[in-house]
Amino acid sequence: MRFHTRKWIKPQDLNPNRTLFGGRLLEWIDEECALYSIVQLENPKTVTKYMSEIDFKSSAKEGDIIEIGIEVLKFGTASITLKCEVRNKMTRETIISIDKIVMVGLDEQGKPKPHGKTEVEFVKDRLK
Amino acid sequence: MRFHTRKWIKPQDLNPNRTLFGGRLLEWIDEECALYSIVQLENPKTVTKYMSEIDFKSSAKEGDIIEIGIEVLKFGTASITLKCEVRNKMTRETIISIDKIVMVGLDEQGKPKPHGKTEVEFVKDRLK
Amino acid sequence: MRFHTRKWIKPQDLNPNRTLFGGRLLEWIDEECALYSIVQLENPKTVTKYMSEIDFKSSAKEGDIIEIGIEVLKFGTASITLKCEVRNKMTRETIISIDKIVMVGLDEQGKPKPHGKTEVEFVKDRLK
Amino acid sequence: MRFHTRKWIKPQDLNPNRTLFGGRLLEWIDEECALYSIVQLENPKTVTKYMSEIDFKSSAKEGDIIEIGIEVLKFGTASITLKCEVRNKMTRETIISIDKIVMVGLDEQGKPKPHGKTEVEFVKDRLK
Amino acid sequence: MRFHTRKWIKPQDLNPNRTLFGGRLLEWIDEECALYSIVQLENPKTVTKYMSEIDFKSSAKEGDIIEIGIEVLKFGTASITLKCEVRNKMTRETIISIDKIVMVGLDEQGKPKPHGKTEVEFVKDRLK
Amino acid sequence: MRFHTRKWIKPQDLNPNRTLFGGRLLEWIDEECALYSIVQLENPKTVTKYMSEIDFKSSAKEGDIIEIGIEVLKFGTASITLKCEVRNKMTRETIISIDKIVMVGLDEQGKPKPHGKTEVEFVKDRLK
Repeated sequence: MRFHTRKWIKPQDLNPNRTLFGGRLLEWIDEECALYSIVQLENPKTVTKYMSEIDFKSSAKEGDIIEIGIEVLKFGTASITLKCEVRNKMTRETIISIDKIVMVGLDEQGKPKPHGKTEVEFVKDRLK
Repeated sequence: MRFHTRKWIKPQDLNPNRTLFGGRLLEWIDEECALYSIVQLENPKTVTKYMSEIDFKSSAKEGDIIEIGIEVLKFGTASITLKCEVRNKMTRETIISIDKIVMVGLDEQGKPKPHGKTEVEFVKDRLK
Repeated sequence: MRFHTRKWIKPQDLNPNRTLFGGRLLEWIDEECALYSIVQLENPKTVTKYMSEIDFKSSAKEGDIIEIGIEVLKFGTASITLKCEVRNKMTRETIISIDKIVMVGLDEQGKPKPHGKTEVEFVKDRLK
Repeated sequence: MRFHTRKWIKPQDLNPNRTLFGGRLLEWIDEECALYSIVQLENPKTVTKYMSEIDFKSSAKEGDIIEIGIEVLKFGTASITLKCEVRNKMTRETIISIDKIVMVGLDEQGKPKPHGKTEVEFVKDRLK
Repeated sequence: MRFHTRKWIKPQDLNPNRTLFGGRLLEWIDEECALYSIVQLENPKTVTKYMSEIDFKSSAKEGDIIEIGIEVLKFGTASITLKCEVRNKMTRETIISIDKIVMVGLDEQGKPKPHGKTEVEFVKDRLK
Repeated sequence: MRFHTRKWIKPQDLNPNRTLFGGRLLEWIDEECALYSIVQLENPKTVTKYMSEIDFKSSAKEGDIIEIGIEVLKFGTASITLKCEVRNKMTRETIISIDKIVMVGLDEQGKPKPHGKTEVEFVKDRLK
């Protein structure tokens, strides 16, 4: 699993108990999955279709840095299935892990659009 | 299921495809579950512990009004288990439903704190 | 008066004195009135036209839950007149009350648009 | 009346009808009054106590620049009474005007704190 | 140099060390320069092209009020060159100063658009 | 240079001309430099001290994905000097590059704190 994006827990990311607000964390994960899928499927109109169960294992506090990791499980016809893990870079603890997230690429009419991809490509290989 | 909170989809709640950003929706659900549980457990230090799988059935667009419904499934020793559904008030479609969300009340040391509750109370009965 | 929407006071809702920022509260009230009126008038293009005087009776602090109540005073030709009260769900104190808020439904040209409504309808009766 | 602060209407300041969201405008006004009063009363713990009625005369659209003007009406024992007007710098129209806003300086216990001021001071005269 | 806009440091403007987040300050400066230039060049499509080096001389803490000053250095064909200084209104310290900021007015195709201005105009002289 | 963090341009990141708001970009860069430095210096109290000149070479539009790259130029006694580049992942264009950003680690009193580091460490080597 590759950990790309890092977040710094700032005051506006806290709940009133002064730990990381769970809703903010889910927002970050959803954005990271969208980003990753858009780049892989080369389709900017890619949306979240499904997330498997979420277990909140530990939290984070103000000033902590967390990192979000993504791994591809498989490519469907119009979809991509990801696995996601969020870790606390300070304590090395896993905060959350989600075994299966399905993202779907859509066409202009909002219908699933086949992408023809079968494996992870590195953008540097594809675009340069 | 009672639908308390309503949200108006504004420009800052959209993804670049101009539909409701999934991450914002998850943020709203998490906040609503926290609110509901804090009132029921009478413990402000209540956190999200678990969410079952999430199926994104439909979306919403700018200007739509959505409403978030919560139902209690059961009371544990220190926890409360909820069911959540989000509907589009314009189209009457279900946007998302989550069968099981476990919220846990904590004590000052961050350990689960028994709450002694066994059924839903209406605040107007309890506090007036 | 029915209290629909609840808000959880988070760090980003505070002023530097660490009480609820009055500007945030006014923002929430305006949004709630818009939501309520859009549903009643069945017109998404509904705007705030007038608010009567506002007395800030008490405040709220981080972690408090507040609830926003709305009551219809009357229906005009193109408008709806509301009354609004915000209470602290923890302390049961009234935070703010506004005796009269006029919301107006507009047509495509931005002119007042008659709505033909004379009483509060429950959406479940209207739309199912 | 002196117009200090200017705001640029950005996408996150719009309502779904793509005009300036009234709630955002009220938030800006409240902040500007707090700023102004803190500087005049030399008391950072200054809060909004009262606003007289608000008439929304015109709106603003994305990309417009608005400016917020403040004028002192009188100094009370612990309070300051302001008048506020917001104008659209593009169209020169008045967007909103509020005849009377009462701000109160508090002491550490949250009680009104006499300030001994009787007239507007320019900070450059006072602090240099 | 004239200091127009003032900001009140609120919780969401802090970094986890509880001083003013540098990124927020840069955001505020960029917005102020855009505002100022749009009014001077009478072109809403004005963008930041260049900023000279930035020295962070002091910081600010929650509840402080800062003010942002702008001065015009020169008018180019399609551009305007500004100088900017941010001061802490509480401590009178300079927080940041930027010697040279170049803003460019663009036409519909995104090409530099000559503005014909050679000196600062006061909007009240120009528009009334 | 390693490009870690990616951002998806959403409606709230745009200026009224519907391109990426320069202020948001500067905010993102400042946060990324803070994150990177905190991890390298192992000091959470690390602040921005200096940025060299900034040339805005191109922009980005809604839905684009940008990535932020950081490279270490040198370690000082209490500081770390970075180089930063932001690229548009869609068009491969450089949006901004900053040749020199100095971040300083502080002690509890806010004085520069020697860190004893002389080269980039990978956290996986250091912390596992």
